Amino acid sequence: MYNHRTLWMNNDGTVCFVDQNQLPFNYSIVKTQSYSFLIEAIQNMNIRGAGAIGVAGAFAMALAFREYETHIKNDFFIDQVRKQISSARPTAYNLQYAVDKVYKAGLSGGYKHAFYQAQQIAEDDVEMSRKIAKYGYELIADKSNILTHCNAGQLAFVNYGTALAPIYYAIEQGAHIHVYVSETRPRLQGARLTAWELSRAKVPFTIISDSASAFLMKQKKVDAIIVGADRIACNGDTANKIGTLEKAIIAKFFDIPFYVAAPSTTFDLNCSDGEAIPIEYRSPDEILYLDGINSENIQQRIKITLDNVQALNPAFDITPNNLITFFITEYGIIKPNKESIEKMIKR
Amino acid sequence: MYNHRTLWMNNDGTVCFVDQNQLPFNYSIVKTQSYSFLIEAIQNMNIRGAGAIGVAGAFAMALAFREYETHIKNDFFIDQVRKQISSARPTAYNLQYAVDKVYKAGLSGGYKHAFYQAQQIAEDDVEMSRKIAKYGYELIADKSNILTHCNAGQLAFVNYGTALAPIYYAIEQGAHIHVYVSETRPRLQGARLTAWELSRAKVPFTIISDSASAFLMKQKKVDAIIVGADRIACNGDTANKIGTLEKAIIAKFFDIPFYVAAPSTTFDLNCSDGEAIPIEYRSPDEILYLDGINSENIQQRIKITLDNVQALNPAFDITPNNLITFFITEYGIIKPNKESIEKMIKR
Repeated sequence: MYNHRTLWMNNDGTVCFVDQNQLPFNYSIVKTQSYSFLIEAIQNMNIRGAGAIGVAGAFAMALAFREYETHIKNDFFIDQVRKQISSARPTAYNLQYAVDKVYKAGLSGGYKHAFYQAQQIAEDDVEMSRKIAKYGYELIADKSNILTHCNAGQLAFVNYGTALAPIYYAIEQGAHIHVYVSETRPRLQGARLTAWELSRAKVPFTIISDSASAFLMKQKKVDAIIVGADRIACNGDTANKIGTLEKAIIAKFFDIPFYVAAPSTTFDLNCSDGEAIPIEYRSPDEILYLDGINSENIQQRIKITLDNVQALNPAFDITPNNLITFFITEYGIIKPNKESIEKMIKR
Repeated sequence: MYNHRTLWMNNDGTVCFVDQNQLPFNYSIVKTQSYSFLIEAIQNMNIRGAGAIGVAGAFAMALAFREYETHIKNDFFIDQVRKQISSARPTAYNLQYAVDKVYKAGLSGGYKHAFYQAQQIAEDDVEMSRKIAKYGYELIADKSNILTHCNAGQLAFVNYGTALAPIYYAIEQGAHIHVYVSETRPRLQGARLTAWELSRAKVPFTIISDSASAFLMKQKKVDAIIVGADRIACNGDTANKIGTLEKAIIAKFFDIPFYVAAPSTTFDLNCSDGEAIPIEYRSPDEILYLDGINSENIQQRIKITLDNVQALNPAFDITPNNLITFFITEYGIIKPNKESIEKMIKR
């Protein structure tokens, strides 16, 4: 499978990550040993995607333990940093899950254990994606057109991803798959990141406006939809990028299968249903301004409308369980109900 | 009501129009006496919106008769120009309707009659919008939140518009209305044009990404949706800006009224249903490039993704009649079925 890590930590504690705000125009690797720099990178979406921010949070938590051990800090330091990282972005459960694991490891065994635990989370992330690829492949017919929204590929995880992993795997098995990439306003993760990934992996794709998916589904040009997830409640209600709910409703209307690909670490058994999942609102500027390159290939920010207008920018929405055909997890294909989910998590 | 004409023709045959590609940054009036310049303005969307391109087509047809009378032309000239104007944009029926009327007037009475007929179409357009405003007002509750898509306001017609006209009228009657403006990718008619119009008319509004409408509807923050139309088949199937179908499906899912405001000149009795309505595909560049202003207030075009990627850009979609609650026409509130529509058109 197409193989490039999105982020990793060296033995000396240097964290390296692909700066996703530079893509698709520049592929640049940023290096840091600072936990607070990583928090900012998560907030500013230099690192984004459920798995990637989970692993970045794990690395940041480990680095905080090193800071604690090598400098004199107050007793509250570790707890404060833990809260800072966990709340850097509120919706993705992977972040909270990973930070909590490294926190516990660090408390019991210091930086050394925290480092090991963080690396293990990164390796697990890769392994879960590989398994999701294979299970998801079973749901993909040859010569099919798959619609995806946002980016739940390699860039959203350490490698391979979730929604895109089965597509990469299917292509590797010789299947002919074409992907419709919903551009994903406001931040254009589809047009910028998924397009970049699919180009690099030589997967045929077509970018569409977010508004064009019903048009394609009505014409029977979409065989299945696969998206990722940021947090899944124990009844199967799923938080994912704004616009996912729309696509799920439309898929139901046209009787098209709607799959959510996510590792078990995205399932939050503390959330009984979607109402309990916190939704992040981001700056209206993400709607009112756009980044790209001008005719001289220089990165440029433009404003698309008037000054002093109001915009509302919810970053995620909740898709109810009854609109989801199946979850694709590292434990296999799971039905979107409490029983199946609890059985999967507790196995 | 808020009163500025989007286009008009002076007695000397000079056609004046607001260049909509300059909005919201510059309000500039373009003047021409050339029918071919008007055809280009329609194609490039300097003039856009069902009613506005109908009237522009009428003016262009009239000017072609003048050209025919003042210069030596071959016998096919008028027929060729008629076809050129009618096909400048294929979906909006208003264009074909208006051009045919002026063509017939010109054939029987030359430029003088064509000019008069074109002016009459412009006046009728204003009158129809006024009536739509009043009928639509009956459907709008005080203190309600209305969602609209694209721009079916003053700029899309000669004045007032269709979808926005009832909102302007309601505000004039002292109602408190807030409008959610769906930005309307790829060309951002919502964020650019509807926002500009509503700002100017001091109507409170909030811009959202096209993908955020289900999020708002699920939270019961949308009381009704009002959109315009480019062509309505005689069974009520409606062509409108890409994304309209999505909003109609989602409105049905959440049981929210979905109104289509359009004058009788948008109804095409030659189309038995939506399948017969031609859909325009526009350049993929509209998805891959975006226009705005940079930090120095200079207009700038940026590219948002890689070179050599494929994009598909259908400009319209078809909303089936069973997803439409009512049509708001100059003859009143009409049910979305063949019987009611034929009765309205033939009255």
